[in-house]
Amino acid sequence: MSDAPRPAPAIAALPPSRPFVGPEELARRVDGAELTRLGANESAFGPPPAALAAMRAALERTSWYGDPESFELRTALAARHGCGLDNVSVGAGIDDLLGLVVRGYLAPGDVSVATAGSYPTYAYHVRGYGAREENEPYAPDGSIRLEALLERARRTRAKVVYLANPDNPSGAFAAPPDVARLVAALPDDCLLLLDEAYGDFVAPSELLPDAIDPRIVRMRTFSKAFGLAGARIAYAISAPEVKATFDKIRLQYGVNRTAQIGALAALRESEFVAGVVAEVARGRTEYVALAERSGLGTLPSRTNFVCIDLASRARAEAMVDALLRRGIFVRKPGAPPLDGHIRVTVGTAPQRARFAAAFEDALADAALPA
Amino acid sequence: MSDAPRPAPAIAALPPSRPFVGPEELARRVDGAELTRLGANESAFGPPPAALAAMRAALERTSWYGDPESFELRTALAARHGCGLDNVSVGAGIDDLLGLVVRGYLAPGDVSVATAGSYPTYAYHVRGYGAREENEPYAPDGSIRLEALLERARRTRAKVVYLANPDNPSGAFAAPPDVARLVAALPDDCLLLLDEAYGDFVAPSELLPDAIDPRIVRMRTFSKAFGLAGARIAYAISAPEVKATFDKIRLQYGVNRTAQIGALAALRESEFVAGVVAEVARGRTEYVALAERSGLGTLPSRTNFVCIDLASRARAEAMVDALLRRGIFVRKPGAPPLDGHIRVTVGTAPQRARFAAAFEDALADAALPA
Repeated sequence: MSDAPRPAPAIAALPPSRPFVGPEELARRVDGAELTRLGANESAFGPPPAALAAMRAALERTSWYGDPESFELRTALAARHGCGLDNVSVGAGIDDLLGLVVRGYLAPGDVSVATAGSYPTYAYHVRGYGAREENEPYAPDGSIRLEALLERARRTRAKVVYLANPDNPSGAFAAPPDVARLVAALPDDCLLLLDEAYGDFVAPSELLPDAIDPRIVRMRTFSKAFGLAGARIAYAISAPEVKATFDKIRLQYGVNRTAQIGALAALRESEFVAGVVAEVARGRTEYVALAERSGLGTLPSRTNFVCIDLASRARAEAMVDALLRRGIFVRKPGAPPLDGHIRVTVGTAPQRARFAAAFEDALADAALPA
Repeated sequence: MSDAPRPAPAIAALPPSRPFVGPEELARRVDGAELTRLGANESAFGPPPAALAAMRAALERTSWYGDPESFELRTALAARHGCGLDNVSVGAGIDDLLGLVVRGYLAPGDVSVATAGSYPTYAYHVRGYGAREENEPYAPDGSIRLEALLERARRTRAKVVYLANPDNPSGAFAAPPDVARLVAALPDDCLLLLDEAYGDFVAPSELLPDAIDPRIVRMRTFSKAFGLAGARIAYAISAPEVKATFDKIRLQYGVNRTAQIGALAALRESEFVAGVVAEVARGRTEYVALAERSGLGTLPSRTNFVCIDLASRARAEAMVDALLRRGIFVRKPGAPPLDGHIRVTVGTAPQRARFAAAFEDALADAALPA
């Protein structure tokens, strides 16, 4: 069929790729039973009650499109961050907003610098839009090598540096003075894409101040501490020029109406969210203790997940499979030096107990490679 | 700030553009009161009851991501259309899927052929991805000039021809034999993007048969007859090769989880949807009669809206404004020869009565240009 419609050459040249396989598909591959979901860093504590009530009340109007400007939500977010409406962009999850940064700021062949094995969907966009990936590995302790990122950005004349802080999948956290130093030293025409998806798990005082820096685009989400992952709603804080760029290319009607309403209500639920964050901290401590009991190390985490060191890629992969066979969904970092770890989301207390039992059982299983 | 981060040149060159201004923003421009929404072809009849119930039950799990494969929904859609799972792609509204076709099949500079003034979001994507627009005007009666589209596609070596059938904003409908003739005569390497957003308002027997043609990508949505516009969910039926192309570039976690569940439940509500379609047909007849009483013509419509002929662009624009001041949101086609019309969505009986009163009042208003 040489004369059939053919994709544009740049798209035809892309290999098939999926940043993640969903737990629904994994369940279909085993026996189809619902898995204990500790693999996608979803909140085990559900949406805030007020968000749930607001969404429930909004459903009858699902026949209406959402406001393409997300005006009410952006107004509330601007108040939250002490910035203007033209500093806030709303998208269908950080994934959507990452795509806008890549499409908007990386022409084909332009260089993006990131940490190898950091959030795969960012790399998916970089490759998808024909930009060039320049990656720096994690330090062996899972921390991000800010100096090395900076050095690489300078050397390669990068247009965008991606930094997830706190990081996924490592859980590592870079303190504000270190991030500020990175920003100060970046080439003037380079954008820092600061993915703060897990920013709600650290104190606001531990993040960069809210002041707008024209070289920083910050991303925040309702998917993690706010418990609205399935709603697909997140936002970016940026200079007005960056928002104006997004507005030229974004899907104007891309955000679910009920999600807009749920997110707005969720913002008022600071007490609920603080409770989630506290329980997540308890859960992390439990996971660390569990690993220690088995003589295994963990990476320090400031997020809602913990990486447990299984010492080798083969062993970590076998553990992911062993847990799946026991009805538990976890994931693992893909790239060295972290690929010998599994990454476990903090669940509810019963989920954590279920994980602990399955984990210890799997460790005792002779099928696990040495 | 010559050394600030700058958008990629192709994006920097795009003028600011918004396919639509939302009714929420229009309301904010007048007195902020909620408008009677007859401008965005949303269903006035709400979501199907079973969809509402399913979404309500699903909300507690909004903390879970949706299945990135939309497996259950795609399975039901494949059964509906008698095709395979690899012929069905789900996206966050047809807008999302149109973007995938443009990005996937139009390299920068490649030609897209469409009808001038047809669905603006398609043109937004074509410009946004740097493709070249080649447009053919509507016939004066609002119908699509299929022969002229074909001729232009051949002449310009177009890679994609966009056809909305039934069409928006005209309401026109091309019968299957005419569409089939267009397909047969298209260059072999040219894709027909068949936007059937309003396809549920005509009988299935009036559409092209469901057989998969490698040169056709069909788009269907839950936004219109199914009453789920705010959910942002739609699908494409295509050859597996086209789906594989989408899968390389789509936002894998772009669809709201509750929307997936609502859409699946909505598919079982054929009786409800048939009721909506019947009531929409009654409403169209009412609108035509209303226009006739005022000595005005209408365009034949097979959709959930009717275009009323105000005879000039200035007069149509003044009518849109006059209705807005009376609390009613309608839109109008943007390009000649249809720009002298207003486009009114079929509302509920009370909404239609409200529209009729406001319309006749506005017509009597001396402020309306002659």
